[in-house]
Amino acid sequence: MKKKQKRKIGAHPGAVVFTGNRKVEKISIHYLEYNEATVNSQDLDNQSITSFHEPVDNLIQWYDVRGLHDTALIEEFGRVFNVHPLALEDVADTQQRPKLDEYPGGIFITIRALRFIAAERRVESEHIALYMGPAYVLSFQENEVDCFNGVRERILAGKGRIRKRQADYLVYALMDAVIDQYYTLIDEVEEAIEALEKKILENPDNTIKSEIHSLKQEMLLVRRSIAPLREVVTAFDRLEGQLVTDATAFFIRDLRDHIIQIVDLVETYRDMLNSLHDLYLSELSYRMNNVMQVLTVISTIFIPLSFLAGVYGMNFDYMPELHWRYSYFILLAFMTLVVVGMLSYFRRKRWF
Amino acid sequence: MKKKQKRKIGAHPGAVVFTGNRKVEKISIHYLEYNEATVNSQDLDNQSITSFHEPVDNLIQWYDVRGLHDTALIEEFGRVFNVHPLALEDVADTQQRPKLDEYPGGIFITIRALRFIAAERRVESEHIALYMGPAYVLSFQENEVDCFNGVRERILAGKGRIRKRQADYLVYALMDAVIDQYYTLIDEVEEAIEALEKKILENPDNTIKSEIHSLKQEMLLVRRSIAPLREVVTAFDRLEGQLVTDATAFFIRDLRDHIIQIVDLVETYRDMLNSLHDLYLSELSYRMNNVMQVLTVISTIFIPLSFLAGVYGMNFDYMPELHWRYSYFILLAFMTLVVVGMLSYFRRKRWF
Amino acid sequence: MKKKQKRKIGAHPGAVVFTGNRKVEKISIHYLEYNEATVNSQDLDNQSITSFHEPVDNLIQWYDVRGLHDTALIEEFGRVFNVHPLALEDVADTQQRPKLDEYPGGIFITIRALRFIAAERRVESEHIALYMGPAYVLSFQENEVDCFNGVRERILAGKGRIRKRQADYLVYALMDAVIDQYYTLIDEVEEAIEALEKKILENPDNTIKSEIHSLKQEMLLVRRSIAPLREVVTAFDRLEGQLVTDATAFFIRDLRDHIIQIVDLVETYRDMLNSLHDLYLSELSYRMNNVMQVLTVISTIFIPLSFLAGVYGMNFDYMPELHWRYSYFILLAFMTLVVVGMLSYFRRKRWF
Amino acid sequence: MKKKQKRKIGAHPGAVVFTGNRKVEKISIHYLEYNEATVNSQDLDNQSITSFHEPVDNLIQWYDVRGLHDTALIEEFGRVFNVHPLALEDVADTQQRPKLDEYPGGIFITIRALRFIAAERRVESEHIALYMGPAYVLSFQENEVDCFNGVRERILAGKGRIRKRQADYLVYALMDAVIDQYYTLIDEVEEAIEALEKKILENPDNTIKSEIHSLKQEMLLVRRSIAPLREVVTAFDRLEGQLVTDATAFFIRDLRDHIIQIVDLVETYRDMLNSLHDLYLSELSYRMNNVMQVLTVISTIFIPLSFLAGVYGMNFDYMPELHWRYSYFILLAFMTLVVVGMLSYFRRKRWF
Amino acid sequence: MKKKQKRKIGAHPGAVVFTGNRKVEKISIHYLEYNEATVNSQDLDNQSITSFHEPVDNLIQWYDVRGLHDTALIEEFGRVFNVHPLALEDVADTQQRPKLDEYPGGIFITIRALRFIAAERRVESEHIALYMGPAYVLSFQENEVDCFNGVRERILAGKGRIRKRQADYLVYALMDAVIDQYYTLIDEVEEAIEALEKKILENPDNTIKSEIHSLKQEMLLVRRSIAPLREVVTAFDRLEGQLVTDATAFFIRDLRDHIIQIVDLVETYRDMLNSLHDLYLSELSYRMNNVMQVLTVISTIFIPLSFLAGVYGMNFDYMPELHWRYSYFILLAFMTLVVVGMLSYFRRKRWF
Repeated sequence: MKKKQKRKIGAHPGAVVFTGNRKVEKISIHYLEYNEATVNSQDLDNQSITSFHEPVDNLIQWYDVRGLHDTALIEEFGRVFNVHPLALEDVADTQQRPKLDEYPGGIFITIRALRFIAAERRVESEHIALYMGPAYVLSFQENEVDCFNGVRERILAGKGRIRKRQADYLVYALMDAVIDQYYTLIDEVEEAIEALEKKILENPDNTIKSEIHSLKQEMLLVRRSIAPLREVVTAFDRLEGQLVTDATAFFIRDLRDHIIQIVDLVETYRDMLNSLHDLYLSELSYRMNNVMQVLTVISTIFIPLSFLAGVYGMNFDYMPELHWRYSYFILLAFMTLVVVGMLSYFRRKRWF
Repeated sequence: MKKKQKRKIGAHPGAVVFTGNRKVEKISIHYLEYNEATVNSQDLDNQSITSFHEPVDNLIQWYDVRGLHDTALIEEFGRVFNVHPLALEDVADTQQRPKLDEYPGGIFITIRALRFIAAERRVESEHIALYMGPAYVLSFQENEVDCFNGVRERILAGKGRIRKRQADYLVYALMDAVIDQYYTLIDEVEEAIEALEKKILENPDNTIKSEIHSLKQEMLLVRRSIAPLREVVTAFDRLEGQLVTDATAFFIRDLRDHIIQIVDLVETYRDMLNSLHDLYLSELSYRMNNVMQVLTVISTIFIPLSFLAGVYGMNFDYMPELHWRYSYFILLAFMTLVVVGMLSYFRRKRWF
Repeated sequence: MKKKQKRKIGAHPGAVVFTGNRKVEKISIHYLEYNEATVNSQDLDNQSITSFHEPVDNLIQWYDVRGLHDTALIEEFGRVFNVHPLALEDVADTQQRPKLDEYPGGIFITIRALRFIAAERRVESEHIALYMGPAYVLSFQENEVDCFNGVRERILAGKGRIRKRQADYLVYALMDAVIDQYYTLIDEVEEAIEALEKKILENPDNTIKSEIHSLKQEMLLVRRSIAPLREVVTAFDRLEGQLVTDATAFFIRDLRDHIIQIVDLVETYRDMLNSLHDLYLSELSYRMNNVMQVLTVISTIFIPLSFLAGVYGMNFDYMPELHWRYSYFILLAFMTLVVVGMLSYFRRKRWF
Repeated sequence: MKKKQKRKIGAHPGAVVFTGNRKVEKISIHYLEYNEATVNSQDLDNQSITSFHEPVDNLIQWYDVRGLHDTALIEEFGRVFNVHPLALEDVADTQQRPKLDEYPGGIFITIRALRFIAAERRVESEHIALYMGPAYVLSFQENEVDCFNGVRERILAGKGRIRKRQADYLVYALMDAVIDQYYTLIDEVEEAIEALEKKILENPDNTIKSEIHSLKQEMLLVRRSIAPLREVVTAFDRLEGQLVTDATAFFIRDLRDHIIQIVDLVETYRDMLNSLHDLYLSELSYRMNNVMQVLTVISTIFIPLSFLAGVYGMNFDYMPELHWRYSYFILLAFMTLVVVGMLSYFRRKRWF
Repeated sequence: MKKKQKRKIGAHPGAVVFTGNRKVEKISIHYLEYNEATVNSQDLDNQSITSFHEPVDNLIQWYDVRGLHDTALIEEFGRVFNVHPLALEDVADTQQRPKLDEYPGGIFITIRALRFIAAERRVESEHIALYMGPAYVLSFQENEVDCFNGVRERILAGKGRIRKRQADYLVYALMDAVIDQYYTLIDEVEEAIEALEKKILENPDNTIKSEIHSLKQEMLLVRRSIAPLREVVTAFDRLEGQLVTDATAFFIRDLRDHIIQIVDLVETYRDMLNSLHDLYLSELSYRMNNVMQVLTVISTIFIPLSFLAGVYGMNFDYMPELHWRYSYFILLAFMTLVVVGMLSYFRRKRWF
């Protein structure tokens, strides 16, 4: 089996190289055009994007591509919509960090969709790229799970204010859809942490240490995917010119609040996981202490007694105590006394 | 039992969705209008807010709502007072992080009231939203405990300078009332930490590790609820225009000092709890060391002696020592010597 | 016994409420007026402050109050010198964080005096408030220990440049006197740390872990009391207008250097204490290792030998070795061999 | 063997002193001149650089030197191309931190090439210096491995846009070639971390602790070599004047994104390695716990039983139990009962 | 023996008080005046500094004082060269943190020379003060080791560019001489760390933990002495006016790069030492695990066997096995089987 190419290395700048695993069988392109009055939706094939025409009647055009392995298609989009080669390069690079680049004629945004696979305590990360021109939006998703379904339905149904707004609001709505999913992730991580906490205190078994560890690793990944979004949204908010309208600004600021809250929560969960590791180590130390106390109590009581029994099991010819009438019983009584004394001593020291 | 919806996921932006647990049975609305000369207080029902009239005679109007589950009521407030949809959305979202948003025509502030339930070592957090227009203030509390009682009494009694000031001073007074309660929380946490510290040094039992852990988690929550307030108050201080008067600025700056002091204390308590965890681990290690020393002293003394006793308990036909007259007493004397020697050796090594 | 009120909770803003423990029996007020030519010193009673007169001949007036529990007196000062209510509130709040507030007509500064009680490894913290008007300075100390004695003597003796300067230089001198004491604290903490370090390496007894812990807690308190001073002095340096003269600026900058150096040292000591805790844990682990090695050496040598002795102490009718002539001596020789072999093995593994 | 001189100490400022190990036998100089139409490549000897002539026809000149121990050659370059002495000093200092210095007439950049030697878990670091004049670029590499081969081939083949651009694009392309290699390093480190993680959970042997440690050390080195590049590229982006053209700016910004992503990853790997160390300690503690539980179970069962056997091995004349008919069997039954009881007790405590 | 006065406490601001240990017997003053053409060097006595004359012919004057305990001499310098009292105070304060103060008429700089005493793993720190006027430089060293010898020789020999430049270049050269020595320190610390690392993995003896600890403490001291230099050199670079010439700016910027690199390295070494401590704890834990496994293997094998031997050493009248013909050999065979079984079990668990 061929190993996936994780990163584009050695190609010349601007080369469109698909990195990562191919996650879809066949690339699908969905086209939607709408304004306040009309809406029109259709699936395209690879050829039809060449028939791009300037939108009329304030129509907003949205091309949604699922699957990124066909670099020729991406380059065709670049040619038709006049996208900068470096933006095209980043569309195909699935390891891309979230960022916003301003090119003449368009805004390019990458963002990562995250899903928590609770069974494997693993976060699945998907690369999503958005390109906004004056009256069109291109969106590229890595696999077939459609992050943007809610937005598409709102447009088709004419719900909310989306049909009345410009392309910038559509980009906002798409980003909002991705970021909204983070809350699901956050809730599931919180549940996983609470479950771990309960397990440590009740039954700290062999798997906990690797579970804490892998959850920590995943939170590192999540933070790396989310933290740069703050800058992206701040840059989006500060964009000047005709591309972004004033009415959308309040919504972008709201988005920024959401991201800050999520980054905050991710940081909190990292601290919680560190604290959980501390708790686990305390628990191990505490149990070790208990085990050692049991061992010490048993040994301290019986080793000296065994020694005494050993003494009177010796075979010397001349051991006067052996021949006394009550020495056996005296010894037994003495041993009982020793046991009782030691137990009360250990009890006082709270060793059991 | 239905699980609470923790976060609003998937709804369109600006949708007013109640999240969290419903904490009150019936929503209550309290209305207060005052100026320096007059004051008028009454309880409203849901319908009466529609009869809002522009205030006359410099009257300040204060609507205080307790209970957030009736989203229709919140939307009605929004319609009457012309509140931005995104602000209404945040009124109903009980997981909201403290923030200040400036909308045309009004300032929207969210803040969290915190109470420490000492018995459960748990912090209870309540979402509070404030909306300030030119001469009115809307306040929304999540449950029936009234954070604002002191302010209401000061207005009714005409104490202090509150009746002489504008709506901005009322907002300041409401925020001050919430922040004042943090000091109670701080004092109780400090007492809990001191109690834990004493317990670790005197009797580090099974519960301590989870108590430190849960107190740490709660401090994370507290910090998350308080830290953003710094920015809120700074933004409040920097608001320009007619909404905020100069005379209130000194008070807002004072509020900011309080918040910085509280955040400082929360950070200090986090450091203290980390130090407490270190202390607990040291204590466990120290006790383990003591236990092991006892075990080692006992074993090191008696295992060799038992061996000696075992040797003379062997049944070989030809063991000359067995038949000597004083060999038993010589052996006992030798054993005593060994015990005394070892004890003085361990004493010198300070093992007991 | 009534518990001290640690923080002012629930009072209206600007209320002068004394918090903390009352540390002096009777409040004393000391008055000093001076210019380059004359100096005049006297003790006042509570009534005489009302006879405040505008200073003549460039006289600087200094009122020094020791004891803060008489809030009526503080309010009287406020009335006479026209001090803002929020400043008065902070005079009486002994938990106040260092800060500088600029009010119309005066500068208000709070600062904390710190003393290290070496015997209890505890830092005592005192609240000090300064208020500077055009030609007068009010100073409020919490207890009878006079931090400002050196300054008073320099004024009375006419030493240095203090008699030639304005009120701002007096404020500088008072702050310098308090900050100078921090160096004493710093030296004593350094000595305590060095003593602890020596004790850990030589004789890590039961008290060390709590000593490290309490020193850490105290350093947290110290940092919290000192760190905000950087901002205070920076703000003092940046004050514009007639209150602060150019000639004092170099001295204030020097003060800032001192505070930065002290904060630096406090941070260093915190790192040292953390490192000390690490050292202590290493020491415990190392000793545990040693103890366990002793136990293991003893057990590993004697438990198998005891087993051998036990075997030949069995009472089977038919055990041929028991009846051979030299088997006892052969066994003894074999046992000696085993001991020597094991000892050399452990020696090679450096276990003792 | 003479020890390498690690750092230039004591020489006067601007002295060109070679530090580090000599990594090449013979210095090689490669010369390339190109414009959109023509390209010309040749190897030079030390003398021929003096025949430098001002480029004609928009030709870009690129001198690539491999090997830095010939300080006379470096000084000759300095004389011919009028390079500032401090830049020449930094060319020969192989310990140089990445930086960009702007001199009149040229830009000087140093950067470090990194390679991960997986077998030794060691990162090899090479010092690379670039100097850009109006229409020429000087590059200095420490050893014979050619980092710039890809760029040279693109120029010779006329691929991409490099032949159409100015000297600034060549510098960009050279930096991009070095930074591209970091991704290889990153991938190999990630694999090493994953391998370590697997090994800890499956078979934590003696080498792991030093492997984690040395990987941590290497990541410190890597971070130290990469982190300053952010400032370098930011400074490159902000250069004004004729040296850098507008068309290159997008590419430099892209380079900056790459570096931020790499620094991000390096930070993440450091966190991962810390987490790995925690995991390793947990694993050791967990195994220790298991070992101690086995020891305690065995000791707790057999030490009391041995004592019992010892008692009935004593040789007292009067021990009535010895003479009863079934006492042996009763004792065996009792012992069996004790074993079963203890085993079920330990089972309930989950000790095995 | 009188304890050294570590810090100046209680003196009035501007008082010149010598703190620290007196390190030289007799103060020596060296005088050097030079311009591009001439150079003149002589040793002065305390009186001759009063005969200061304004330099002619662009002569640069350099007074170098070794030994700081004669505060009268320092005050005399202050009087002759018109130095601000606060600068004089800092000349005599050997605990001074590096800083740059700009006074009317001169620049005052303090810096610390550091030497690593490898044998004691201790860093020796020396206080150095520089004062620069329009055409003269005063330098004050704490002891007789001359940090500035290289600079003096370059001036006397006329090497480099120093004779052609102004006083600012001399100050740069003096600072460069001190900072150059840090590289020696850095190299020696690196060697000490590598030696420790090797020792931990090969033979972690009793001294390591205190060696790590003391090296950590020293690095804290080093960082505290070096880190503020960044600000000093930045301030030096930003000085405006006639005191600093443009030509020196490139050299100061180079100095700043050196300091950033050194601070970077010091931070890296701190991280390395922390990692070393982790390694040491892992090593201890790992060895402890090994020791416990040996103990457990031995105990688990022989304690049950000893019990068996004990059973057949009992003296019951009726024990049928004792009288069977082959029971002894059967028992021996059974015991051998148990030993073999357990060994293979432990082998499978990799306990030895």
